[in-house]
Amino acid sequence: MESLTRVSMSVCPFVKASSAQALRQISKSSGLANQARQCPFMGAAMSAKESSRNYSSASRPVNATAANPVSDRSATASPYAFTGSNLSSQSVDVNEKVSSTSSSGSQFDYQGFLNNELHKKRSDKSYRFFNNINRLAQEFPLAHRAEESDKVAVWCSNDYLGMGNNKQALDEMKRVLDKYGTGAGGTRNIAGHNLSAIRLEAELAALHKHEAALVFSSCFVANDAVLSLFGQKIKDLVIFSDELNHASMIQGIRNSRAKKHIFKHNNLKDLEEKLAQYPKSTPKLIAFESVYSMCGSIAPIEAICDLAEKYGALTFLDEVHAVGMYGPHGAGVAEHLDFDAQLKAGLASPPTQTVMNRIDMVTGTLGKAYGCVGGYVTGKANLIDWFRSYAPGFIFTTTLPPSVMAGAATAIRYQRQTLKDRIAQQQNTRYVKNNLEKIGVPVIPNPSHIVPILVGNAADAKKASDLLLNKHNIYVQAINFPTVPIGEERLRITPTPGHGPEIANQLLDAVDSVFKELNLSKISDWENKGGLCGVGEGNPAIEHLWTESQLALTDKDLNPNVIDPVIQHVGVSSGVSA
Amino acid sequence: MESLTRVSMSVCPFVKASSAQALRQISKSSGLANQARQCPFMGAAMSAKESSRNYSSASRPVNATAANPVSDRSATASPYAFTGSNLSSQSVDVNEKVSSTSSSGSQFDYQGFLNNELHKKRSDKSYRFFNNINRLAQEFPLAHRAEESDKVAVWCSNDYLGMGNNKQALDEMKRVLDKYGTGAGGTRNIAGHNLSAIRLEAELAALHKHEAALVFSSCFVANDAVLSLFGQKIKDLVIFSDELNHASMIQGIRNSRAKKHIFKHNNLKDLEEKLAQYPKSTPKLIAFESVYSMCGSIAPIEAICDLAEKYGALTFLDEVHAVGMYGPHGAGVAEHLDFDAQLKAGLASPPTQTVMNRIDMVTGTLGKAYGCVGGYVTGKANLIDWFRSYAPGFIFTTTLPPSVMAGAATAIRYQRQTLKDRIAQQQNTRYVKNNLEKIGVPVIPNPSHIVPILVGNAADAKKASDLLLNKHNIYVQAINFPTVPIGEERLRITPTPGHGPEIANQLLDAVDSVFKELNLSKISDWENKGGLCGVGEGNPAIEHLWTESQLALTDKDLNPNVIDPVIQHVGVSSGVSA
Repeated sequence: MESLTRVSMSVCPFVKASSAQALRQISKSSGLANQARQCPFMGAAMSAKESSRNYSSASRPVNATAANPVSDRSATASPYAFTGSNLSSQSVDVNEKVSSTSSSGSQFDYQGFLNNELHKKRSDKSYRFFNNINRLAQEFPLAHRAEESDKVAVWCSNDYLGMGNNKQALDEMKRVLDKYGTGAGGTRNIAGHNLSAIRLEAELAALHKHEAALVFSSCFVANDAVLSLFGQKIKDLVIFSDELNHASMIQGIRNSRAKKHIFKHNNLKDLEEKLAQYPKSTPKLIAFESVYSMCGSIAPIEAICDLAEKYGALTFLDEVHAVGMYGPHGAGVAEHLDFDAQLKAGLASPPTQTVMNRIDMVTGTLGKAYGCVGGYVTGKANLIDWFRSYAPGFIFTTTLPPSVMAGAATAIRYQRQTLKDRIAQQQNTRYVKNNLEKIGVPVIPNPSHIVPILVGNAADAKKASDLLLNKHNIYVQAINFPTVPIGEERLRITPTPGHGPEIANQLLDAVDSVFKELNLSKISDWENKGGLCGVGEGNPAIEHLWTESQLALTDKDLNPNVIDPVIQHVGVSSGVSA
Repeated sequence: MESLTRVSMSVCPFVKASSAQALRQISKSSGLANQARQCPFMGAAMSAKESSRNYSSASRPVNATAANPVSDRSATASPYAFTGSNLSSQSVDVNEKVSSTSSSGSQFDYQGFLNNELHKKRSDKSYRFFNNINRLAQEFPLAHRAEESDKVAVWCSNDYLGMGNNKQALDEMKRVLDKYGTGAGGTRNIAGHNLSAIRLEAELAALHKHEAALVFSSCFVANDAVLSLFGQKIKDLVIFSDELNHASMIQGIRNSRAKKHIFKHNNLKDLEEKLAQYPKSTPKLIAFESVYSMCGSIAPIEAICDLAEKYGALTFLDEVHAVGMYGPHGAGVAEHLDFDAQLKAGLASPPTQTVMNRIDMVTGTLGKAYGCVGGYVTGKANLIDWFRSYAPGFIFTTTLPPSVMAGAATAIRYQRQTLKDRIAQQQNTRYVKNNLEKIGVPVIPNPSHIVPILVGNAADAKKASDLLLNKHNIYVQAINFPTVPIGEERLRITPTPGHGPEIANQLLDAVDSVFKELNLSKISDWENKGGLCGVGEGNPAIEHLWTESQLALTDKDLNPNVIDPVIQHVGVSSGVSA
């Protein structure tokens, strides 16, 4: 670094004007090297220097096997790396990639390692800048940026139904805040179990027509905790996982250490080939989603249930992007597949077998269509009691605030008793999809509520997002790696019931303008290039899951038969008396 | 099961009165075997039958190696099990322990497995029954049980300072609910980054006098995400972990797959022996807590920093049970160790090196002394930016609701500007500890705010807790395995500023009565048995961390110099511009 410092003395007005002591102080308090990397001159010089450097070796343990075998829980160092298709992480071999100033007497260069890691993100354009977006409840779907007067229309939130602004949920949250305070005050076992948790879990069990439910801090935690528990406790379990599964499921499966097979996205033939490698008696679990959030595809749930039965597998269905959005009561795609029977039955179970009760466990979120935060799993009573009793991610964490749980329960019940938000959301989605197609903007085709506009590279996606925000006052975040594969970068648009034709027309004009200004590929361009992600590949038009006749329903068509789920389902969430 | 069914036909009035069809229906819908296990006759018969049964073998994969190597991310099945000292989980060998009806043509007996797992919990008395406790903000520290009129005094919440009832935090939460709605609406990268997050992270960085902070769903998630990232990204990292570390840290270390050494609790000699096995150039991380929540012990933080410097290790300090509670501004034990210098400096950094700035990263919670929910990590800007950019548990999850983050920020700032709650809490703690000792009740000695009453077995601890609740209207949850080791079960009491002498005297009388009624071991009994956990072991009296002269301070002694942390720290939480 010394020679670089000398060089900088001659060219940098800041360095020239600072005393050596001041530079040392800055270096100590904020990492001068880190700041220097942001300078156009120094940054380039440092990168060049790093790539030409011979990295010194970090030494191996000299006496690892002599560790005390009693107090020691050491595990063998492992070559594992993140293998998730939408996770970026790769184990870094410090011997090869990280700068180190070490002789055997100096320590590992932690700062160099960190700066190098961040530098990689900047180099491949996957470094993320968060936009300061303050969604205004009273002016939905508007938000203000850093300044309150600087307002934008939000077109990419996961508050799919605009429930963040629901008066009943807000009133209930404020009532519970006043009565029960800011937080739960403990874990579920120690002072943090209360009526709000009991009621919420009863609502969730009733929603999915399962025996019981368990609430977690988030659905990331629920997926991680549930999947990792299975693999850790059932020694010979084999997990079959869709290749587009969410990062939380990938993490849970990875942490489970179970043997796993990744099957091609929504590909039943590939799944069956993998299942058929094992005898029926081998314990198995198929993990998949109903709506895949970044492309909007929907899983063949019934056919997967058929395979699960045939091969003796449990089914784990993540309905995170579907709860609130599908089915006559908002229970998700599994409910939607028996639409008429579930509509007729109301809160009771239809007399025939349904897709919902063929699924062994459903995970879902309270943070998207229900507008709050938190995640959950539903299933049979003993399954939920097992999670409750064994999953560290549930046991050892503070309960969500009573106000949050009460707000979520109110939102679920509200959405269970009305169809109109789901229908309006679908209608607004079709309006946007159809009109984007008319102006030649490439939407990745799918049967759900997601509107993914294909851009195809990270820099353009970010430019398009920035242009929409800064020129058109429209916020659509660019979706880059690791959330989607490199080369499939997109703008992901999520209309809500509040995004009607008038505001949608502003979006359409703005997207059209941005596509022209940045010269982005349109449908015809993708056709010429052979297509990508279903765009320009000449596929037949996709049918939306919500049919025209379902969209014509009104709240009068709902069965008014409402059974209070708190009365029905109280046992498991407190433990079952022996 | 058939023969048991026949037996039950002859003795059970329920089975006798039900048709075969009805029984089949119940069996299908709710697991008759599971219900039967709760019957005093059937339960015993089934246990006897299970323990005498020869379990059939689950078969091994027949063709695992033929799996498609391209689409397959299969990992080798592994013998890993939970190895955490306070986690119960052990990988279950299905070949040995689980009932199965399988021939090669029938599936794994999932129901039998689950029921067996739950049965084990009941047998060893570690099955948990959650108490329905609704903490009343306006009647702190009272709560109501299922019925609103059934009130109890809560003596075991982690709302250590009674901030759940803080008017400023509640008002701010309601204001933000009205303005910004029920939830954040997305991940931090997609529509979920906002002023509440920016302000909260700035408050946290200012509190710990670190460059930056990052908020997670919980501190369980923060510990898991941060520790696992280190091990996954720095290939040769070795982690050194205190044997009493929390389950979240154990999980993070386990998921990191780094080589690890568990050192004896607070034992510097053991830690140094383990560190010395590696050259200085090997990357290392020492993970420990400041206050250990179940015994109240406090780590020798400075001495651990000395070892970290000597051997080139990063320091990871969990201050979950200390933030809000120690230090002139509530930043935790690390701040408390430089009490006078930090008191004098106010929000600025003291001119000399402090313990706080020797620690590389601090994790903490917003859900205990600050009364809300959520967790965080603080440290240097590039370290926090690395977590922000790479940790899946941060990236792929919905942001906490703006109202929760705003409430937490308000609580932090409130506690930073007053000493009186911390001092009152400590004084009430001493009153309870001293008077329990006077009546011979065994308190595990420690220098912190935790009052752990040693009971010594699970059944008695539960009985004592139930008796306190049902006879004396006092809620103190029994702490059993896996939270504490078997044989060290306890009642964990946590006084707050609201638990003054009057209500404490009711507790003392009740505990005295319960100890007599259940004939529990008192201090003298433990002395006769040779002592346990520091009780009856003839140790010298322990000095509390808060000294008498510190307890004599008032808010006038605080430096009124308040710098707005939002102005100081804005960079990292949004990404650092290149």
